[in-house]
Amino acid sequence: MSDDITISLQEAETLSKKVLIKNGFSQAHADAITKSVLAAQRDECHSHGLYRLIGCVQTALNGGVDTDAEPSITDQAASVVKVNANKGCSLLSFELGKPMLIEKAKANGIAALAINNSFHFSALWSEVEALSAEGLVALAMTPSHAFVAPAGGTLPLLGTNPIAFSWPRPDGTPYTFDFATSVVARGEIELHRRAGKSIPHGWAINDEGKATTDPVAALAGAMLPFGSYKGSALSTMVELLAGPLIGDLLGHETQAANAEKTGKPFHGELIIAMSPEAFLGSQAESHLKHAEVLFDSILGQGARLPSQRRFEARERSHANGVTFPKALYDELNALAS
Amino acid sequence: MSDDITISLQEAETLSKKVLIKNGFSQAHADAITKSVLAAQRDECHSHGLYRLIGCVQTALNGGVDTDAEPSITDQAASVVKVNANKGCSLLSFELGKPMLIEKAKANGIAALAINNSFHFSALWSEVEALSAEGLVALAMTPSHAFVAPAGGTLPLLGTNPIAFSWPRPDGTPYTFDFATSVVARGEIELHRRAGKSIPHGWAINDEGKATTDPVAALAGAMLPFGSYKGSALSTMVELLAGPLIGDLLGHETQAANAEKTGKPFHGELIIAMSPEAFLGSQAESHLKHAEVLFDSILGQGARLPSQRRFEARERSHANGVTFPKALYDELNALAS
Repeated sequence: MSDDITISLQEAETLSKKVLIKNGFSQAHADAITKSVLAAQRDECHSHGLYRLIGCVQTALNGGVDTDAEPSITDQAASVVKVNANKGCSLLSFELGKPMLIEKAKANGIAALAINNSFHFSALWSEVEALSAEGLVALAMTPSHAFVAPAGGTLPLLGTNPIAFSWPRPDGTPYTFDFATSVVARGEIELHRRAGKSIPHGWAINDEGKATTDPVAALAGAMLPFGSYKGSALSTMVELLAGPLIGDLLGHETQAANAEKTGKPFHGELIIAMSPEAFLGSQAESHLKHAEVLFDSILGQGARLPSQRRFEARERSHANGVTFPKALYDELNALAS
Repeated sequence: MSDDITISLQEAETLSKKVLIKNGFSQAHADAITKSVLAAQRDECHSHGLYRLIGCVQTALNGGVDTDAEPSITDQAASVVKVNANKGCSLLSFELGKPMLIEKAKANGIAALAINNSFHFSALWSEVEALSAEGLVALAMTPSHAFVAPAGGTLPLLGTNPIAFSWPRPDGTPYTFDFATSVVARGEIELHRRAGKSIPHGWAINDEGKATTDPVAALAGAMLPFGSYKGSALSTMVELLAGPLIGDLLGHETQAANAEKTGKPFHGELIIAMSPEAFLGSQAESHLKHAEVLFDSILGQGARLPSQRRFEARERSHANGVTFPKALYDELNALAS
């Protein structure tokens, strides 16, 4: 007997929108959130899939996100578009800012979209992939709650600060990566705690700044950046670019807002898009084809490309629908009625 | 008795230019190369300091760089400037492209400078710092010889592919990092080999793709990217952005050109500049000040900022001049006469 259920992508989409609309989200927000959650469920990223709707609704009920916020778009500079999410979810701001970002990147070669004052809970890869689908190279980053100590430090300060990148490939499936700049996701430490297992060395420090393999001590202490001082530097860069550069908060400030139960840890996101056509003119196609040599060489020596599993899952989901715990399905239906 | 010599920055500059001019470099190239080499010597980055002149001259004598190449500048798009180094050293191309990059970044918010077809030997931090000195945020990357295996792979494919970033700070000393995406610099493995020491686990694999702590086997095999698959993904991004996106070679292709003794492993570099003023208008100053909270918090918990040692060395050098082996001084003087 399986505790899972399989539904079609269409059914999952309908369910997601019902949950969101029922809980106060405007149609525009429900559409944008569903697009992201559905993409993650389709790619079997369960942590960012339909499961996220529960947290999203809970945040809305707690007043932590404005469910019908109307983002305001500013044509800030020739290559910069800013979208103020006005305390709504970041995803609608991305959808509304995207056309101008694409237009500017294609016209000028490189352009940036800054999203401010947003509630952010989604995977970045779906956004950079949406830009690659338009033939653009894209890079995205956002600060998150300050659970990570800088290399050499002892206290949580940096967010898990993800970086995502996508490169358009001639066959239609982009080269995409999306990773936290912490060694692991915080959820991994949670899973070890629940299973009563110790965590590997190098993941975290305790509240005295000492190395620990105890997940409870780790959660009370700080996670470590990946790759020691290099990952720490990259994480700091994410804080600066998706924070002060776009006039928004640092990771530990969103954390403070959360801890104070003001429930409004709104912050920023930066997306940079580049157009191979603008950089290369008529030679763009041949150079994009040339990049395939690199991917072929990686695969040819038995290594994998970063999103390979996700793309395989995507094919399965398009063919067979999405499979997830029946308990989650029941919970979502309860939220929708 | 010391085997070192100390000379003033002015004397070091004069010596560098004499070495370069004597060995066929045009005045413009000598000036640009000296600027970079002198900055590194001043900051006590000996590996990229005056010592580099020896390799640079050797490359010139081997016909591996055109010593009086005149770079050609193309105003490629509203936010893209391209400079073809025409087989000369990358540094003059940077100097010549920089004014247009600054102008475009300030006018449009974000802009890119692509340098093609260049001989590249220099540290990237001096370039991103030059842009921060103009009030810009800057990111630079370049592919290098393919000494690094992708995570999960067994063969050298990726370059050591450095990434540099600089952020302008109100007190004038920027936040700057510059690191290879390999675990360590290749020179570190060389040093272990010469000292007859084994290397730590995780630095490299042998020519059968197996983990090794033998520096000889490591040099015959492949280095590993920092931070496993995350560093590998970043390194791949560097190859793509400073390669096919700007119409230039991949790391393993420059390597092949070198191995074939054609002596012309010319390749590309990408520099992205962003203007806080263009992103933020009159609020730029307050948000740049706000970023200081992050730096203060890093320092406040006993961690260091990435370039701290370099900036301390810089102060010493401005006060006392630069100190380096007398043998190098003699060698440079011989090259200059």
